[in-house]
Amino acid sequence: MEIKLQQDILAANDKIAADLRKIFEDKGIFVINLMASPGAGKTSFILRIIEILKDELNIAVIEGDIASKVDAEKVREHGVAAIQINTGGACHLDANMIRGALDMLDLDLLDIIIIENVGNLVCPVEFDLGENVRVVISSIPEGDDKPLKYPRIFVESEVLILNKIDLLDCSDFNLGEFKSIISGLNPSVNFFEVSCKLVEGVDVWVSWLQKQIYEAQKTKSGGV
Amino acid sequence: MEIKLQQDILAANDKIAADLRKIFEDKGIFVINLMASPGAGKTSFILRIIEILKDELNIAVIEGDIASKVDAEKVREHGVAAIQINTGGACHLDANMIRGALDMLDLDLLDIIIIENVGNLVCPVEFDLGENVRVVISSIPEGDDKPLKYPRIFVESEVLILNKIDLLDCSDFNLGEFKSIISGLNPSVNFFEVSCKLVEGVDVWVSWLQKQIYEAQKTKSGGV
Repeated sequence: MEIKLQQDILAANDKIAADLRKIFEDKGIFVINLMASPGAGKTSFILRIIEILKDELNIAVIEGDIASKVDAEKVREHGVAAIQINTGGACHLDANMIRGALDMLDLDLLDIIIIENVGNLVCPVEFDLGENVRVVISSIPEGDDKPLKYPRIFVESEVLILNKIDLLDCSDFNLGEFKSIISGLNPSVNFFEVSCKLVEGVDVWVSWLQKQIYEAQKTKSGGV
Repeated sequence: MEIKLQQDILAANDKIAADLRKIFEDKGIFVINLMASPGAGKTSFILRIIEILKDELNIAVIEGDIASKVDAEKVREHGVAAIQINTGGACHLDANMIRGALDMLDLDLLDIIIIENVGNLVCPVEFDLGENVRVVISSIPEGDDKPLKYPRIFVESEVLILNKIDLLDCSDFNLGEFKSIISGLNPSVNFFEVSCKLVEGVDVWVSWLQKQIYEAQKTKSGGV
């Protein structure tokens, strides 16, 4: 019964996510579902993206947290719309929560929505949010063995950001070992090493992102 | 229906946890439920405890992970029994999994069982495992705002370990702010600052632990 109910929940979620994907496509909005452990640097990563892109593209952020509104406040300080979802205990965002958040955004104005999922390497990956890309952040202080222990999120993400690369020298993180594990799990993942603190490498990722947005728009134009 | 089922699952878990607690008490085994984000340093913390206590007390470790057996292997290399539970996707350990693991341990010989829960700041706290104490580890690179975002695990733990304190100087972690948040959430929590890498502060925590074990044994003797 438990498994059946879980299947029902996921099926209902997928249906809403498909509706969201259609809305995002119609409105020409590129959507990023950003997932990571607590403290891997999701919010800092978003702030770096905003700093580079905000004069060029209209960005909104949807912040998912169990409690508090500190992340949404940080984003708003950077002059970008931010909707805070408090899940009230739930360990992930779901498509229905995103649908509710969209009512508070002017979709006709937006180019990108960045969704910061609840800090968790397990549960968020089960729930499609209608996004274009899933991005998982891992960070040096977490250790090089996390993909072995939480494989699904690393297998099902199109982008892997390795953050806090500035801490590599003062840790026992084995970068070769990490890359080797990733090659086995998800050889086609787009891999970027960054330091959100030192603003290193973020530009390379943003160039990749801009290309994806351009490709998505081109596909859409071609399809009309 | 979803809420009702969740209540049923938790009620069933609590019943098994009560049975486990009785077994642990009868056998004089002190049980620690160790919870944290992925990469906060749970396994390193366990290894430091083992190094200090293994000549004095009989220790076993139950390792909870979605996948892999790397943690159990690390513990066994330290000459201590370790049972690896792979949850196969589940984001937490539950009492039934612990009951299964106990079949593989000689309970008459043991003084302490350390349970390393799945790396997750959300889900594990919902499931009683029959433990004596709940210990949550937070670490400097995760940032000082984690208790605001994941309050329940910080409210319901008797011990808070702040790990990787050696990284304090090269981070923007505000220790005063962190302590202030914790004072609001859980003023009676037993708080220890440690560096598992530099083996700093672990001895203070172990002294506290030894006192708890002694008190538990005294209570038991007094009750006979």
